[in-house]
Amino acid sequence: MNQLRQWSSQIVEHRAFQPTIITLIVINAIIVGLESYRGLYDAYGDWFIRIDTIILTIFALEIVIKLIAARPTTNFFKDGWNVFDFLIVASSFIFMGSPFVTVLRILRVIRVFRTISMIPSLKKIVNALIMTLPSLGTILILLSIMFYVFSVMGTFLFRDVAPEYFGNLQLTLLSLFQIITLESWASNIMRPIQDEFWWSWIYFVTFILAGVFIVLNLFVGVIVNNFEKIEKMENDELPEGDDLQDEVYLLRQEIKELKDAVKEK
Amino acid sequence: MNQLRQWSSQIVEHRAFQPTIITLIVINAIIVGLESYRGLYDAYGDWFIRIDTIILTIFALEIVIKLIAARPTTNFFKDGWNVFDFLIVASSFIFMGSPFVTVLRILRVIRVFRTISMIPSLKKIVNALIMTLPSLGTILILLSIMFYVFSVMGTFLFRDVAPEYFGNLQLTLLSLFQIITLESWASNIMRPIQDEFWWSWIYFVTFILAGVFIVLNLFVGVIVNNFEKIEKMENDELPEGDDLQDEVYLLRQEIKELKDAVKEK
Amino acid sequence: MNQLRQWSSQIVEHRAFQPTIITLIVINAIIVGLESYRGLYDAYGDWFIRIDTIILTIFALEIVIKLIAARPTTNFFKDGWNVFDFLIVASSFIFMGSPFVTVLRILRVIRVFRTISMIPSLKKIVNALIMTLPSLGTILILLSIMFYVFSVMGTFLFRDVAPEYFGNLQLTLLSLFQIITLESWASNIMRPIQDEFWWSWIYFVTFILAGVFIVLNLFVGVIVNNFEKIEKMENDELPEGDDLQDEVYLLRQEIKELKDAVKEK
Amino acid sequence: MNQLRQWSSQIVEHRAFQPTIITLIVINAIIVGLESYRGLYDAYGDWFIRIDTIILTIFALEIVIKLIAARPTTNFFKDGWNVFDFLIVASSFIFMGSPFVTVLRILRVIRVFRTISMIPSLKKIVNALIMTLPSLGTILILLSIMFYVFSVMGTFLFRDVAPEYFGNLQLTLLSLFQIITLESWASNIMRPIQDEFWWSWIYFVTFILAGVFIVLNLFVGVIVNNFEKIEKMENDELPEGDDLQDEVYLLRQEIKELKDAVKEK
Repeated sequence: MNQLRQWSSQIVEHRAFQPTIITLIVINAIIVGLESYRGLYDAYGDWFIRIDTIILTIFALEIVIKLIAARPTTNFFKDGWNVFDFLIVASSFIFMGSPFVTVLRILRVIRVFRTISMIPSLKKIVNALIMTLPSLGTILILLSIMFYVFSVMGTFLFRDVAPEYFGNLQLTLLSLFQIITLESWASNIMRPIQDEFWWSWIYFVTFILAGVFIVLNLFVGVIVNNFEKIEKMENDELPEGDDLQDEVYLLRQEIKELKDAVKEK
Repeated sequence: MNQLRQWSSQIVEHRAFQPTIITLIVINAIIVGLESYRGLYDAYGDWFIRIDTIILTIFALEIVIKLIAARPTTNFFKDGWNVFDFLIVASSFIFMGSPFVTVLRILRVIRVFRTISMIPSLKKIVNALIMTLPSLGTILILLSIMFYVFSVMGTFLFRDVAPEYFGNLQLTLLSLFQIITLESWASNIMRPIQDEFWWSWIYFVTFILAGVFIVLNLFVGVIVNNFEKIEKMENDELPEGDDLQDEVYLLRQEIKELKDAVKEK
Repeated sequence: MNQLRQWSSQIVEHRAFQPTIITLIVINAIIVGLESYRGLYDAYGDWFIRIDTIILTIFALEIVIKLIAARPTTNFFKDGWNVFDFLIVASSFIFMGSPFVTVLRILRVIRVFRTISMIPSLKKIVNALIMTLPSLGTILILLSIMFYVFSVMGTFLFRDVAPEYFGNLQLTLLSLFQIITLESWASNIMRPIQDEFWWSWIYFVTFILAGVFIVLNLFVGVIVNNFEKIEKMENDELPEGDDLQDEVYLLRQEIKELKDAVKEK
Repeated sequence: MNQLRQWSSQIVEHRAFQPTIITLIVINAIIVGLESYRGLYDAYGDWFIRIDTIILTIFALEIVIKLIAARPTTNFFKDGWNVFDFLIVASSFIFMGSPFVTVLRILRVIRVFRTISMIPSLKKIVNALIMTLPSLGTILILLSIMFYVFSVMGTFLFRDVAPEYFGNLQLTLLSLFQIITLESWASNIMRPIQDEFWWSWIYFVTFILAGVFIVLNLFVGVIVNNFEKIEKMENDELPEGDDLQDEVYLLRQEIKELKDAVKEK
């Protein structure tokens, strides 16, 4: 057992291990791309499925080896990316042979995201992006409350006039998302309602002003976050203030010695 | 009377008080959401109204207790959020039994915003957002002047050609708001007018360029504001410059003593 | 003559002078707004014109007095805002009695912009906005070159397929402006052309990517500009580094005296 | 040969050289602009072609002279802008007399971009813009992966329902670009699909949220980049910390002398 673990570790740390997996992910990506062309799929569909089975098997092997190499085994699941890898591969096996061809295809496409977990610089940037989310928490809660209140309000007010946009809570939520992206908010959504209820502009203009203001503050939050991170890094690298402080400290030592010299006389 | 006040204070400061109110707000939010589904309302409408009456009664009690607990009573109204709570609950009572079902429903939905006044971190962020508004005052006045001038101008120029967009001052204002969000400004608004007046693009392009430039500066104002606030906070936290100054001050003390020692000899 | 000048100065500097003019501008703004309602104009049109004539006369008097008060008279025209005031009022007189009612109305609306030149804080912010323009000069030239090249190219390529968007150089320029605001660029402009020339997406995507990238850098330029201005102001206000330098300088003086004291012995 | 090189250098460095070329580029720009008007081309087409031939000949001469002036000749191609100039002019000769009139015209328009390589300040800003790209590398790769995954997925899911938007991989990529610019994403693309597959909003909303978040971080990257560059420049210009350090150093020298003075006694 112990030897198996050592043997696994050697494989995982082998310098050809990571490039091999990345190559397979790229091949997987190309095949799934080619498969999206109907003509190619009809002609070479079998080959695509065969190659895919091989790649999936290697991915499964890869995860098994990584699982064995990790000591203790639970350590493997502490990294969110490993969990992601595991779920992607495991679900491919679960749905294997199922009639939901589309689900299997989607899983195969999502596997391309594994590139992120294999290339350190990509992993780092995605981790950084995800790390900015918690700091945006409060403002996201605020945005959710606003969306909810305006959804319920919009449903009550406009469900009879514009059922395709405000027919029920889910539809209204989606319409509000469309409105906040400013897409056709006036020409398709507000103006037809405006014909019935002249006051409806209050609802839309308020929502857009408040929404854009909050979203803008979200953006500012991301920018500020980034700057703070960079400033922190810079401060750690260039502690020039300390240099000066050291210098002044040395100066004081010098003077103390001088005082002693004077007193000794 | 005094005992009543003390008793009220104890309730307000009880650690179960705030969570209870928040729970009620959430229940209120869920019910008002469910109510927006017609099927559910037809089946359980009575129940929704009953639960709502209970919640409203508790909210009223809450505000009465808070009013009593505040010393002096006018202090209660010094916090804008208390005024907001009071108005929401009071108006629910005023419209109670009125035939305007929609108004009552809207009031019930707006009550969900009370979450903000109950959760300190949300209150803080909304206060911060509102506080940035006065600093944007001058630029907002500028934007208003621009909107007004272009509204009157647009009404004079295009009211005959495009009455649905520029028919009167209010319509034009709304259209200008649509134009500044860049929604269908060319395809729906400018191009049909362009067929009549070839020079109309001057009006639209000028408005968009000036408007976007001013709005951009509004955004920059918000960003700069945020940075200043953060920098201020950081300067308060890390008075490193002072450390150095203290060090140098100590140095001077040392040298004074030395001078005395020399002179004494 | 000299007494007239002194008398004019007294009027201009009188504390009721500026508020009077602002009040008149506001009245002018309200009247021009009311005039935009057809019903009101038909009923009270004569009154509007009479009040307008009075206001215009006072504005003319105001400028004459300011001209006299300025010493030398050419100083008056050194401030761009005075030139703006002068041109607005002068052109109102030039077009007076002309058959171009709309031109006169437009001039009357533009007079509302005089609020900016009368309220110092607005004047300051508009001056600041205009001052950021020169620093954006190079990037604006770059943007113009890009617009010109893509205009000519677009006209050559698509004038036969989409004459309403790319019929000639001016039309193409306007369409490119619409495309850079991202308004209906795909649904109305690119997709119909795409049906004829499959490669047309290269033109549109390149233009949007390059355009947005340059415009983004324009925005960044404005933000950076603002920060620099603020930092400069802060550095002028809080010369804390100098405090320290002074302290250290005093220290050196102290030590020099000490050295003298030692040497004297 | 050597004399020819010297003679070329003199021409290139002559103060009339650069203005002459810029003037020719501007004339070239104007002619190509005029040519885009069909009426003018039919009337003066021959003249346009003649002037163009002359300009092209001078441009070719210019490059030959620059090539000779450069020592060693390969140095000429080390500057990307020279390569750009060379390719533009060379390809004009290659396609000369070919039946592809449009290609020749496009080449003539692109020559206007040579203004950038001739005006130093423009060259500098474009170089700066291009230099920011590598630092955005990782985030661009991330964006590409996201685009690819969503393309393949979108093709599999929606090719039967909306063949004009998701018919094949290229079409889907273009549609995703349209969606990320938020142009008609809901009204034209999502809502018709929504009628068939109610769950399709998940695909669109996820793509927009993730896409906008990544693009936002791209923007932030550009802003941060610019600030860092500026800060670096400022730090180089204003080494105020060093002033203080020098002062403290002088202080230490003084004290050393003092100590010596004390010891000597």
